[in-house]
Amino acid sequence: MDSFDPSASSLGKDVDPAVMHELLQIRSSIDNFDATLVYVLAERFRATQRVGVLKAEHRLPPADPTRESMQIARLRRLAEEAHLDPAFAEKFLTFIIDEVIRHHQAISDGTAPLPVTPGSADADTRA
Amino acid sequence: MDSFDPSASSLGKDVDPAVMHELLQIRSSIDNFDATLVYVLAERFRATQRVGVLKAEHRLPPADPTRESMQIARLRRLAEEAHLDPAFAEKFLTFIIDEVIRHHQAISDGTAPLPVTPGSADADTRA
Repeated sequence: MDSFDPSASSLGKDVDPAVMHELLQIRSSIDNFDATLVYVLAERFRATQRVGVLKAEHRLPPADPTRESMQIARLRRLAEEAHLDPAFAEKFLTFIIDEVIRHHQAISDGTAPLPVTPGSADADTRA
Repeated sequence: MDSFDPSASSLGKDVDPAVMHELLQIRSSIDNFDATLVYVLAERFRATQRVGVLKAEHRLPPADPTRESMQIARLRRLAEEAHLDPAFAEKFLTFIIDEVIRHHQAISDGTAPLPVTPGSADADTRA
């Protein structure tokens, strides 16, 4: 299953073709949003990896509770503006931050497989 | 705590000002990425709400395992291209899909507080 089939579905053959057409149209937009999310997340992790290296170099703690509560309050406000459930936005940010702290801890412990060095644009950000 | 302070931090006053300056620069980019993520997520949920209404109207099941496995395989490929951990990308999509299925179930059960109607651009997508 190497190539992506945007019309793949378990919904069965008895779905009204007009309904299926509308469903596939909406799914095509969802696929575009998902690609955007992946690329923005990749850039976000690139930035947090730089923070991780900076913190490890200067022996700063991986977590920063004041910063995190500020981020959560701001994201809840942005979510309300965007008509997204603020509780979900908070859950989402917590999910991301947990992953970031795991990365920072790995950089700090020296267990990150491929650490980035600040300013190295080609460095691999997987950790 | 109503206004966002981008320099809020628990890191303490003994951090080298040059290090703090670099940290705040990177955090400013992270804040921009987060705003982008919230707005793209809001549009993604708007699209999945339309799918939810369509599925409820035509009595289609909320989950679609074939579609989901296709999405996960594609996201893992996109993540590799973007130098994002594919395992994280999969965890991320699963996190989003679980929320979407919860929304679809609520629409189907009639417990969604503010359902959208297809084609209604102004409808509230919170559910």
